[in-house]
Amino acid sequence: MDNRPIGVFDSGLGGLTAVRELEALLPDEKIVYFGDTGRVPYGTRGAEVIRRYAAEDCDFLEENGVKMIIAACGTVSSVAAHIIHSRSVPCVDVVEPTARAAVEATKNKKIGIIGTAATVHSGSYAMVIDCLLPEAEVYAQECPMLVPLVENGWIGEDDMIARLAVERYLAPLKEQGIDTLILGCTHFPLLVPHIAAYLGEGVSLISAGAAAARACAEQLSASDSLREGLGGGTEFYVSDKGQNFVKVAKTFLGRECEGVKVVDMTK
Amino acid sequence: MDNRPIGVFDSGLGGLTAVRELEALLPDEKIVYFGDTGRVPYGTRGAEVIRRYAAEDCDFLEENGVKMIIAACGTVSSVAAHIIHSRSVPCVDVVEPTARAAVEATKNKKIGIIGTAATVHSGSYAMVIDCLLPEAEVYAQECPMLVPLVENGWIGEDDMIARLAVERYLAPLKEQGIDTLILGCTHFPLLVPHIAAYLGEGVSLISAGAAAARACAEQLSASDSLREGLGGGTEFYVSDKGQNFVKVAKTFLGRECEGVKVVDMTK
Repeated sequence: MDNRPIGVFDSGLGGLTAVRELEALLPDEKIVYFGDTGRVPYGTRGAEVIRRYAAEDCDFLEENGVKMIIAACGTVSSVAAHIIHSRSVPCVDVVEPTARAAVEATKNKKIGIIGTAATVHSGSYAMVIDCLLPEAEVYAQECPMLVPLVENGWIGEDDMIARLAVERYLAPLKEQGIDTLILGCTHFPLLVPHIAAYLGEGVSLISAGAAAARACAEQLSASDSLREGLGGGTEFYVSDKGQNFVKVAKTFLGRECEGVKVVDMTK
Repeated sequence: MDNRPIGVFDSGLGGLTAVRELEALLPDEKIVYFGDTGRVPYGTRGAEVIRRYAAEDCDFLEENGVKMIIAACGTVSSVAAHIIHSRSVPCVDVVEPTARAAVEATKNKKIGIIGTAATVHSGSYAMVIDCLLPEAEVYAQECPMLVPLVENGWIGEDDMIARLAVERYLAPLKEQGIDTLILGCTHFPLLVPHIAAYLGEGVSLISAGAAAARACAEQLSASDSLREGLGGGTEFYVSDKGQNFVKVAKTFLGRECEGVKVVDMTK
């Protein structure tokens, strides 16, 4: 039994897709979410900067007394794994559980990965898949424009720009005949209608945020560290509450994001 | 006569369009450029964060002994004017000189403005135009997706996504019959082929970076503060040299960006 909260962080608001999953799986847990909206996006930045930001994000959550950290960010999980896994509290990243779910889902052993530039260049998902299923063929595609598309809300099912952008990025993967696609960035679940329409039926879509949330629940349960008592709740912290914050946060979380506090990460 | 360098900063690399203009106007000046690529973009962030970042950017340039600062960033110029104009060295922002150039260019007194969300919400360009030409009709449109389009290089003349994005944003301005358009963000000159093709001949496009560089040259000349001696040169500093840096920098500057140093703004 451990009544401390679970910490979840992301470069921005995409990690709220993991919070949504976690709230559904473990309704009695307390959650502290931190979104580094003052420095988003991470996925186009260099590795050194991503690692520095990741360490500061973990510092913030540890100062808030969390029992476990979920790095609900494909970029941090890919580029800064040794930073987040050397903390004093255990950390779950999105790469291992998502790769595992993809390996379980694939039948033809052709797995596609989409993520930020930093994620794809790191080769993170491909490395884990190679350990779990060495005969798998892996096709990775960086999709930097999909993050701003989601953040700007250009995601409607009849949005021609979203459709064209998804097609431009996914065409090489479709051509390879993948039957499983890892959505390696927590922004991408919001583009599922476009992705599914383009790839067609028979391709499994694996969401990084959801897989990480399930892995966290399993680990807490296995180590007897679930919270005792009823009624969880989530506290939200961001480093900037800029343009479109309320709308974008609601899109990711699926409900109003209330009582959000702003922290200054430059101090 | 003042042999100290001119400082130029931007949230990212868009300000290199101003450096390009400045190098052409004043080839014997030394220039120090700082691009806050570790925290770009500013235009979607809240005013408080933008102001804090702007102050830190000016601190950096002042520590490098500059005689004048150009805020080559539409967002900072719009949201943090009182921060940058209260420094110990004089500062030129993009808003006033760009608005003045637009007022000089318009014939039908219908002026359009495109910029980031923060720039447009600030009303900055409209306020200055209202002082200079009160009878002007001003139409402003925030264009947040154009920054990532440029940064990702989706700007080719036959790029359908760039064409559709430009059309989506500019349709309301075209409908109003503007004859002058302020490119209120230093990223936008790279989309001029698309913008000009859509708006047609007879619409003047005013680039913020170029107007600010001219204003700087005029002020230094008027105060007898130009550098004495031949042979200028530009030093480049950024807070991150991430993905695509070399390619994007070259696109903005029009030549290779050499000897770039990385500074840590979190210290």
